[in-house]
Amino acid sequence: MSNMIKNAINREIPKYIEGIGELKAFGGAFAYNPEGKKAATKIPKTFTGKNKIIENIKTSLELCGIKNGMTISFHHHFRNGDYLVNMVVEEIDKMGIRDITLAASSLQSIHAPLIDYIKKGVITGIQTSGIRGKLGEVVSREKILDKPIIIRSHGGRPRAIESGETKIDIAFIAAPAADAYGNVNGVEGPTACGAMGYAMTDAEYADKVVVVTDYLVPYPACPISITQTLVDYVVVVDEIGNPKGIVSDATRITKNPMELLIAQKASEAIITSGLIREGFSFQAGSGGASLGVAHFLRQKMRQEGITGSFAAGGITGYLVDMLEEGLFKSLLDVQCFDLKAIESIKNNPNHMEMSASFYANPHNKGCVANQLDIMVLSATEIDLDFNVNVITGSNGIVMGASGGHSDTAAGSKLSIVVAPLLRGRLPIVVDEATNVITPGETIDAVITERGIAVNPKRKDLLDLFKDAKLGVMSIYDLKEIAEKLVGKPRKIETTDEIVGLIEYRDGTIIDTIRRAK
Amino acid sequence: MSNMIKNAINREIPKYIEGIGELKAFGGAFAYNPEGKKAATKIPKTFTGKNKIIENIKTSLELCGIKNGMTISFHHHFRNGDYLVNMVVEEIDKMGIRDITLAASSLQSIHAPLIDYIKKGVITGIQTSGIRGKLGEVVSREKILDKPIIIRSHGGRPRAIESGETKIDIAFIAAPAADAYGNVNGVEGPTACGAMGYAMTDAEYADKVVVVTDYLVPYPACPISITQTLVDYVVVVDEIGNPKGIVSDATRITKNPMELLIAQKASEAIITSGLIREGFSFQAGSGGASLGVAHFLRQKMRQEGITGSFAAGGITGYLVDMLEEGLFKSLLDVQCFDLKAIESIKNNPNHMEMSASFYANPHNKGCVANQLDIMVLSATEIDLDFNVNVITGSNGIVMGASGGHSDTAAGSKLSIVVAPLLRGRLPIVVDEATNVITPGETIDAVITERGIAVNPKRKDLLDLFKDAKLGVMSIYDLKEIAEKLVGKPRKIETTDEIVGLIEYRDGTIIDTIRRAK
Repeated sequence: MSNMIKNAINREIPKYIEGIGELKAFGGAFAYNPEGKKAATKIPKTFTGKNKIIENIKTSLELCGIKNGMTISFHHHFRNGDYLVNMVVEEIDKMGIRDITLAASSLQSIHAPLIDYIKKGVITGIQTSGIRGKLGEVVSREKILDKPIIIRSHGGRPRAIESGETKIDIAFIAAPAADAYGNVNGVEGPTACGAMGYAMTDAEYADKVVVVTDYLVPYPACPISITQTLVDYVVVVDEIGNPKGIVSDATRITKNPMELLIAQKASEAIITSGLIREGFSFQAGSGGASLGVAHFLRQKMRQEGITGSFAAGGITGYLVDMLEEGLFKSLLDVQCFDLKAIESIKNNPNHMEMSASFYANPHNKGCVANQLDIMVLSATEIDLDFNVNVITGSNGIVMGASGGHSDTAAGSKLSIVVAPLLRGRLPIVVDEATNVITPGETIDAVITERGIAVNPKRKDLLDLFKDAKLGVMSIYDLKEIAEKLVGKPRKIETTDEIVGLIEYRDGTIIDTIRRAK
Repeated sequence: MSNMIKNAINREIPKYIEGIGELKAFGGAFAYNPEGKKAATKIPKTFTGKNKIIENIKTSLELCGIKNGMTISFHHHFRNGDYLVNMVVEEIDKMGIRDITLAASSLQSIHAPLIDYIKKGVITGIQTSGIRGKLGEVVSREKILDKPIIIRSHGGRPRAIESGETKIDIAFIAAPAADAYGNVNGVEGPTACGAMGYAMTDAEYADKVVVVTDYLVPYPACPISITQTLVDYVVVVDEIGNPKGIVSDATRITKNPMELLIAQKASEAIITSGLIREGFSFQAGSGGASLGVAHFLRQKMRQEGITGSFAAGGITGYLVDMLEEGLFKSLLDVQCFDLKAIESIKNNPNHMEMSASFYANPHNKGCVANQLDIMVLSATEIDLDFNVNVITGSNGIVMGASGGHSDTAAGSKLSIVVAPLLRGRLPIVVDEATNVITPGETIDAVITERGIAVNPKRKDLLDLFKDAKLGVMSIYDLKEIAEKLVGKPRKIETTDEIVGLIEYRDGTIIDTIRRAK
């Protein structure tokens, strides 16, 4: 395999892949220096004030000049309630177009119909933060795509678009509300989703931009999240999404005693770090224990009268409650997870929308992730170097998403992983993670119900946690405890075939996903 | 003069100017088709969450790598209260740097100190919407700059920046409020100016961006008009402007009987046009009679229960009153003219900020000016082809600004000029205007106290106005009436020397400013 080299975390990476090109190997979280200029779009000209409404998606594809080999983009604010990806791909297939690359900010179970379009050759490339459901399973087990899928973080995606690495020919914007001249917001209409952060860079850099809405509002839309200056066409359809799939109920604090215990331990560790002070900032990823941490920190903030500056990321009603209680001064929001968050971003000026680039792109003049004090992360696996997997299960199947995991881990002052030591009979701490999304050098500690392991490079933290008797042990100890309980996990069997490339946020390749047997 | 050609309005235009390059002659308001791609900025990289505050303006210039021949940019939301332009140019001079091009969105009387820096060779090029006061007089009468100044409209400026014609090396943002990581808003602090619309494109396209503020707020600023992702450095100074110069009191309705009469006639004409209907949109330029038109239209709207969609442009308290009364659904604001407008944009979500590109750039996918139904404009002169001058006095001296005049005239369904037939002893209607900012093909009618002239290309309007007995006459008649009263104006004497180029919004040259004797 002379085409392969080892990257900075000892993963074997191809130097070149047909249909994708030369690859850069990951060289360390802060090592890569970008060169050159951002991509530039064509200079348009528009003198007409007439509306931009056209008949249907098919017409929009025709007017945008769809042809074989193009890249089309989508955003995932509708999550598992999204109808648009399937609608557009169906039309493309009907037109006989093939060899399309799908650049989605994420894909969900609802997008399983894409499997058939991949098999037909309509879709030949996928770039996404994650894939859930049947589609994830099929692309992991069967080599149905000639090119590997590319997994990007939420900050890495706008970076790739801005740099021109991902050149979007047509961006489709699923718009909860839009006016006839193309101004869009996410806070009105039957499929209100709140923030539109992932769609913004697409609209800025795509050659053609099509807004699809089921809720046409009088000109001008108000507020405006994506402006008319970027939009070519507006298509009105009956339904762009299922509101039930858009909002999630998973924003209540976990009642699982194990998760509560982990959350409590995590909050003790965070408090011990000394970062809970006036003006601190905070983000918690998804997952039961993560939100639990907010719950325990809230008590501390109340007791001591501490006000944080901001909470960031995908925003839940729980964080809205903390904003309204005055515990945070503001929220910076790239996507809303529930109705309370959607109502809040609509009505509360301190709840601010941000683009994915503003949120997490390492190649701008400073993203919000850089300003985070505390980041609470989840993990499906963590290896002995603290490298974290959140994309594949231990069976090698793509079932999660890169999300903002690696971005916030790199940007925050303190990044801690919260996870149960075992999931079913599978240890979280492993010799070698199935895949790596986030390099260990950006992870400071892992908190389990059985103990806390601190990254050796954070000697300062280790001392603090030891002094506070937080149950510190080495990550090797954690692994041993787990293996004593359930035995050593069987190494999964994969083939040599590469079905996915995991890009680090800076565009280098941190890992490959091998076809699962 | 073989270097000269006549453009579409018969003005002599040079084909080439040393230090500027090839010029494109104006070929008609909608004729020019842009080619190529927008400018691209360098890809930066920022992993630090540390603040961006540096010592002073001198340090910012050093860190930005200031050198001879660079272009620096400024915005004019502080109007005649701006301290920043003079402060920065003074520092540049002290550093011994020469040959700087100043790309300002506009220049005021307060910038008269630039005269000395021009004479010293610190400033060798000026691009601006307008110049008022002593500086305007000097650049018109003395050839103190080797290169002509370039006059651009508010839409033409972002077009030039986006296309790369104006490449900004360092953009200075005078920020009423900023946080230490570079987020900016215009609604807080002692020099609150409201909207920041003219600064936005500078921040996006400049190589380096320096935020200068006298009001540092905790991170993150809220709201955010210009994001940290675009900003390199933050400088905190004692005072960036004089609040008294920032806000203007000229937002009350005129008490001048002549202006009121003109405004009333204009509103009658607008009503006759049939455009005052549910959902109509409106903008009035500055000047006594313009705002008076809003006053009379307001009465009509109340009487008939008509609600407009939006009013746009520079926003005054009078338009805020109409918004709050429910007569307009929203305001689209590129700059605030008074305290009431500043308070409104801070607190009323229906009062929306827009960038100058969103407002008026002809080379994006659709600007707000395209959506205007009615535009009320001022004029210093209007010729028999309806070409309008707002930049020079009849003495040939630069004393005004191009502003959004040509942008809104081109974009709106009905553009009317309101002006007294005489100013002092000078007729408004002239054989040949001293200069042309806005081509007659985009002007529909001129309204004076003595009569109304309709552009012959608007036969529909002519018939409506005649039927309504609005006192329609030809523009030749208007000129004759004026000349009977005050005599034929003496043609001003200019030299052949070109001290200014007037760019039409699309980048073609519509006129030159010759040195006044």
